[in-house]
Amino acid sequence: MKEQFWKNILAVRETSPLVHSITNFVVMNNTANALLAAGASPIMAHAHGEMRDMVSIVGAVVINIGTLDEYFVKSMYLAVKQAHALNKPWVLDPVGAGATPYRDETLQALLLLRPTVIRGNASEIIALAKHNHNKTKGVDSTHRSDEALDAAAFLHSKFGSVVCISGATDIITTPTQTIKLSNGSPLMAKVTGLGCSATALIGAFLAVNPDQALEATASAMALLGVAGELAALESKGPGSLQVNILDKLHTLTAAEFSSHVKVSA
Amino acid sequence: MKEQFWKNILAVRETSPLVHSITNFVVMNNTANALLAAGASPIMAHAHGEMRDMVSIVGAVVINIGTLDEYFVKSMYLAVKQAHALNKPWVLDPVGAGATPYRDETLQALLLLRPTVIRGNASEIIALAKHNHNKTKGVDSTHRSDEALDAAAFLHSKFGSVVCISGATDIITTPTQTIKLSNGSPLMAKVTGLGCSATALIGAFLAVNPDQALEATASAMALLGVAGELAALESKGPGSLQVNILDKLHTLTAAEFSSHVKVSA
Amino acid sequence: MKEQFWKNILAVRETSPLVHSITNFVVMNNTANALLAAGASPIMAHAHGEMRDMVSIVGAVVINIGTLDEYFVKSMYLAVKQAHALNKPWVLDPVGAGATPYRDETLQALLLLRPTVIRGNASEIIALAKHNHNKTKGVDSTHRSDEALDAAAFLHSKFGSVVCISGATDIITTPTQTIKLSNGSPLMAKVTGLGCSATALIGAFLAVNPDQALEATASAMALLGVAGELAALESKGPGSLQVNILDKLHTLTAAEFSSHVKVSA
Repeated sequence: MKEQFWKNILAVRETSPLVHSITNFVVMNNTANALLAAGASPIMAHAHGEMRDMVSIVGAVVINIGTLDEYFVKSMYLAVKQAHALNKPWVLDPVGAGATPYRDETLQALLLLRPTVIRGNASEIIALAKHNHNKTKGVDSTHRSDEALDAAAFLHSKFGSVVCISGATDIITTPTQTIKLSNGSPLMAKVTGLGCSATALIGAFLAVNPDQALEATASAMALLGVAGELAALESKGPGSLQVNILDKLHTLTAAEFSSHVKVSA
Repeated sequence: MKEQFWKNILAVRETSPLVHSITNFVVMNNTANALLAAGASPIMAHAHGEMRDMVSIVGAVVINIGTLDEYFVKSMYLAVKQAHALNKPWVLDPVGAGATPYRDETLQALLLLRPTVIRGNASEIIALAKHNHNKTKGVDSTHRSDEALDAAAFLHSKFGSVVCISGATDIITTPTQTIKLSNGSPLMAKVTGLGCSATALIGAFLAVNPDQALEATASAMALLGVAGELAALESKGPGSLQVNILDKLHTLTAAEFSSHVKVSA
Repeated sequence: MKEQFWKNILAVRETSPLVHSITNFVVMNNTANALLAAGASPIMAHAHGEMRDMVSIVGAVVINIGTLDEYFVKSMYLAVKQAHALNKPWVLDPVGAGATPYRDETLQALLLLRPTVIRGNASEIIALAKHNHNKTKGVDSTHRSDEALDAAAFLHSKFGSVVCISGATDIITTPTQTIKLSNGSPLMAKVTGLGCSATALIGAFLAVNPDQALEATASAMALLGVAGELAALESKGPGSLQVNILDKLHTLTAAEFSSHVKVSA
């Protein structure tokens, strides 16, 4: 599986897929830099009058609701509808799912447009499923990661999405296949928006491998996890980690990747 | 006083207070990173439909008008009104006060909602007070920092706020108590948004110490000043300073802090 | 010519011109930092109600359409109209020209307000001219950089603008004078927004040298090219390059500049 991941990493570097992100203001700069460092070509645009045209020239669409408002939510719908019409993959990052009703209602409407991949932390994935899944009981009594697995299965059954639950161990899952990755560093949680970068990278990998969404997602997460882990070894804190991750995304070699990636299926 | 500052720094690291910032586009990324590096948990959101809900889950609200527009100004009001209703602290950063009438009118309306703390440079603090204080004469003939002290006293008398005048010496003041801090580095003025980071950190410290606004504010300013001063020693210019400050906010030790902080009351 | 460039670089450092940028969300932070590192004073503001007032206090206006929407487009018009009324220079960065009709229509309307300088890559400059220049045929059969030169000449004849075509070689041109610069590093294309930083720096140089738009533009491009080239020598990848460029913009010496700048006229 490592070999296939690396093949996908090279495909992104060699084909520079265009990735259209409608994402939050906090992370736009480092998201664009993460895509560039991995070899992809970022586009960020949200004007309603150009959503259809923009989506038609890109390989994948990334939707991140972090700093959503009415205008951006409409941009997201327009982009995703066009992605559907053109059969292009799209990824949903449900930032802050469960924090407010406005956020949850927006997410439920977006889910109906069947994201190719959903990436969030365990709390976000659980919040997404809870809102749909009234029959779920005793949510707080079950173990958190197990619960997120149930939530992921539910989301797949209802919306057809590959679900990536990110955390100390990243779990990428459909009802028929699950990949677990154990790279990264706790310091990564002290840099804003690395989860958002992960989602954007998933977009780049879907663009080069649209028919293998689970594998593409795992490849993106493996790249960021290994780059982050190696970068953390050279970092004095979260400031230098942010810089070093971008360097490592750009320079990572096959040998470094294959000797460090920790994957189980 | 140093000991109390350090105790507050540890309280932020240990309790990770949620801080809701409605701030300008230029600094959102490094503001979030400064909060994370100091141990706090940043939230950035501005949708009108979720302001009440968001404010109810956080420990403090930070308002920075740097890139204000009609939508964001309304977001600010909604957030601050909810902070009032729930008796939560809020901080005002009057970026560019005095530059345009639109900015000044917005600030005057926000002041009526009685910020717990106001942080700005001397010009901004003076501009805030001038707009209110028509009796002030001969503004240009008085010494700048003295004038800012008068302005601070006026703002406290009218709106009840602790005022932090930041500069080579930071002055945190109420009519009954004043703390002066002399850390930092001139190079910090060449990195955009470190003042905005200061304001956000004040929010984090108010969240853990809401009843001691003056001390909380001074603790935040001392942390950033010492971190910036130590980071500057290792920096080749403003690019590396921005990185090194984040590292230092995260790794600063009690010994480093207490041997470098320069405080007088 | 090197001496004149350096004189302009010093003028920016010594006079700290105020530069008002209405730019895209992705690059606001590093644009502000590039201006600060070069010695200028950045302002970013877009509220309709303060555009006239803000433009009246600055030395130049920078318009970058990267993440345009209806609100920001109106901000751009208001700012540029005021720049005209006050006879202040303004620079246009046509990000993504040719990508969507909405983008092209916005650009055509902005062009009518006669930018002092237009800076874009060859594709963007060609797209700007194509939209105006229906007589152009066989676009794809001519050599790309030659075509951009034709496009630049056309844009100058119609709108009076100095045109800067940036790339491996930067060409700054009017019908009567052309300057070519060959600094920089291929790694710079892996950092988001360095082109946008270039445009903002042009604004700073126009502010200190408004009557010599071609020379001011070339000075800005030379500064960024040399800083980027020297920074790349010390960088492990695009993350550290972004940091090192800011350091180098701030610390670059006359000796470094004059020994590295590659200019031909």
